[in-house]
Amino acid sequence: MASMTPERARERFAGARVARLATADEDGRPHVVPVVFAVRGEAVLMAVDHKPKRSRALKRLDNIAANPAVCLLADGYQEDWDALWWARADGTARVRAADGHGDPAIAALLAKYPAQYGDRPPRGPVIEVAVARWSGWTAAG
Amino acid sequence: MASMTPERARERFAGARVARLATADEDGRPHVVPVVFAVRGEAVLMAVDHKPKRSRALKRLDNIAANPAVCLLADGYQEDWDALWWARADGTARVRAADGHGDPAIAALLAKYPAQYGDRPPRGPVIEVAVARWSGWTAAG
Repeated sequence: MASMTPERARERFAGARVARLATADEDGRPHVVPVVFAVRGEAVLMAVDHKPKRSRALKRLDNIAANPAVCLLADGYQEDWDALWWARADGTARVRAADGHGDPAIAALLAKYPAQYGDRPPRGPVIEVAVARWSGWTAAG
Repeated sequence: MASMTPERARERFAGARVARLATADEDGRPHVVPVVFAVRGEAVLMAVDHKPKRSRALKRLDNIAANPAVCLLADGYQEDWDALWWARADGTARVRAADGHGDPAIAALLAKYPAQYGDRPPRGPVIEVAVARWSGWTAAG
């Protein structure tokens, strides 16, 4: 087993199809949701879905408004534990309105998930995480 | 899409092979790690690995000591987003020493992952989460 370099952790994270976004509310109570995302430079980009998951969306957005510290995790589970790995991004989130199809975050998400978004891009808002630390671990070393 | 009943969310969560454990430190900064686990009644049981992942182990344990509120997530990602689901457990964690092979938490983990643990059960400590709320969502409804 071995720790990943920050560069390798960023690469493994960026290549994952799903991650989990952990936020915490003003009382420090953590909350974690699955997210699709794209990495651009040192930022992790997400958008609230076009689907009306109102309660999910508000909780993460409320938490970020109260406390912008977030943690994102991508990992590969397999029954062969010698193949396990994870990559993590710790950073600070901000929420902003999406600027239509030309929005770089929306464009990055459409490029990564073309079959899924099709002609229904997420409307946002967009969550942008400025990553302060990439870390990772692999069982294989 | 539809919310799951708490009973269904507990069932889907319990059947997953991996979950993600979110904790937060005394400043409310979230931290998320992949975990293997077993569900017994209204508790989620985990144990620190026998492998010497010192830095990972200490962070989650330090966070729980400072702030016992935790959130656990299991989810199924597929490229067909109509097949997505997640199940979440919100609760309160406590950490205790493991009581050898006879420890109910260790026994539950060995029963769920016999091929992986083999004759090397986790030594602990054990993390027990008393679940206050099971929730879940499925795209298929």
